[in-house]
Amino acid sequence: MLFHGLSAFPITPTDARGVVDIPALEKVLLRLKQAGVDSVGLPGSTGLYAYLSREEKRRAIEAAVACLGPDIPVVASAGALRTDEACQLAEDAERAGAQGILLAPVSYTPLRDEEAFQHYAAVAQSVSLPVCIYNNPGTTHFDFSPALFQRLGTLPQIAALKQPAKAEMQKGDVAALRALFPAKFAVGFSGDWHAGGALLAGADLWFSVVGGLLPKLAMALTRAGRAGESDRVAELNQQLEPLWQLFQSLSSLRVMYAAADILGICQPVLPRPLLGLDKAESQRVEQVLKAMPDLE
Amino acid sequence: MLFHGLSAFPITPTDARGVVDIPALEKVLLRLKQAGVDSVGLPGSTGLYAYLSREEKRRAIEAAVACLGPDIPVVASAGALRTDEACQLAEDAERAGAQGILLAPVSYTPLRDEEAFQHYAAVAQSVSLPVCIYNNPGTTHFDFSPALFQRLGTLPQIAALKQPAKAEMQKGDVAALRALFPAKFAVGFSGDWHAGGALLAGADLWFSVVGGLLPKLAMALTRAGRAGESDRVAELNQQLEPLWQLFQSLSSLRVMYAAADILGICQPVLPRPLLGLDKAESQRVEQVLKAMPDLE
Repeated sequence: MLFHGLSAFPITPTDARGVVDIPALEKVLLRLKQAGVDSVGLPGSTGLYAYLSREEKRRAIEAAVACLGPDIPVVASAGALRTDEACQLAEDAERAGAQGILLAPVSYTPLRDEEAFQHYAAVAQSVSLPVCIYNNPGTTHFDFSPALFQRLGTLPQIAALKQPAKAEMQKGDVAALRALFPAKFAVGFSGDWHAGGALLAGADLWFSVVGGLLPKLAMALTRAGRAGESDRVAELNQQLEPLWQLFQSLSSLRVMYAAADILGICQPVLPRPLLGLDKAESQRVEQVLKAMPDLE
Repeated sequence: MLFHGLSAFPITPTDARGVVDIPALEKVLLRLKQAGVDSVGLPGSTGLYAYLSREEKRRAIEAAVACLGPDIPVVASAGALRTDEACQLAEDAERAGAQGILLAPVSYTPLRDEEAFQHYAAVAQSVSLPVCIYNNPGTTHFDFSPALFQRLGTLPQIAALKQPAKAEMQKGDVAALRALFPAKFAVGFSGDWHAGGALLAGADLWFSVVGGLLPKLAMALTRAGRAGESDRVAELNQQLEPLWQLFQSLSSLRVMYAAADILGICQPVLPRPLLGLDKAESQRVEQVLKAMPDLE
């Protein structure tokens, strides 16, 4: 039951040189612990795994495992351009106490299917943890074919899929994905603005960016979706719609960085070349957060 | 006159762990020296800069500068996800004797224009070398707007553009790009299969993958294109068409790795997850190389 319910993907606060600010990370993580999220993905794309050194990733995972305790597992990213580096990251994460691995097919030279398959097989064999396929074509620029999903499903350690949600998902969409994999395989979705629909359509879990900062709100949406309460999902989505619009126009990453500051949790610095939102954009985020339902 | 004529982009031979094989690199580079290419781009995308450690990039650039001598300048890639790392790479390259910097807007989180601009400004300020904008959307997933090109052109150290060539380029296409930049700015093209047309249309230089392994052939095409000899360009392109087709279907990187082995130059190993071509694909490369004009 590692991959189920709400998997929250927080930011990883660092200084400008990329050194993780452990006290700030703990402030972020304690909110997730208090809300009782089902797992924490760290560092995910929002946690800037691609921009952190091996050593800083290890520090962040160790701190998260210690802070969250045994009831909230940490699922750690092992994404890297080189297979040997991805294996090292997975081994580091296992030693640091992570209970699962997220693996995105990071690429520079576009990957062929056989290359992606062997990459997953090598990382899966390097650890004894379950591995989640982290499909995020917007950042990795790799598209999984159904045939590749099926082949990856034959690897015993590949236990879950993190897939971008689409608009107006139906039960058939989730069932079709699930049919590509073995029994007990977990199918989850990212893309917060379509997550409620994905949960109503039968997804096992939501890999949530907003859940990394506003976990009570995300827990409410997760529970309603998993329980099939479509009216409640629609109501929450309507309240969250202004935030979803900001996520889509400014990127969820930049909005979460601004929100952490606006909410007084911490003042995280993005690694250059990434810049924070400008003043007018931050004010829009502030207005939207003020109007959010009082769940957090 | 750093950015003109033929800029050859060789492979960077390494072992499986990513340690540069200096003797093999020297064998590759001596062919370029003998053919008298105008500059060498190392490590470029074909030189796997994205997969090499900082230390191995430095070793490769130092060896290339020593091997090529003062007449053939080395233009070194400083592409990195983080601005601080890109600045370090540029500083390393300058210390190692490179005479120019290639800078691709490598991204994971998609970049905004202001972020890309500040990234270029920071790297340009970190060294006293001219910087070439390395536009390669197929690997970096960043598209430059004309407005961003214009703004980058205001930075005094930005001296050249490496732009993907299009089919059937006209003089107006190159002139329109050139008009975005100051006088004496060099406009060059990548994409070997359209390079002859780009040179005929007035490009200052060709950033060439095939030139990194078959430099005499690439020099012949460069001279013909720069001299406006459209019949000779068409003749060479017709002879090269089977190779261009392999580049487009199998990627120029993988084809060049196979070709280095087939030609007996070295037996380079791609870093996993990248795999060499399979046997049938390699045989196709071998057949095409056998039928190449006897220029190399």
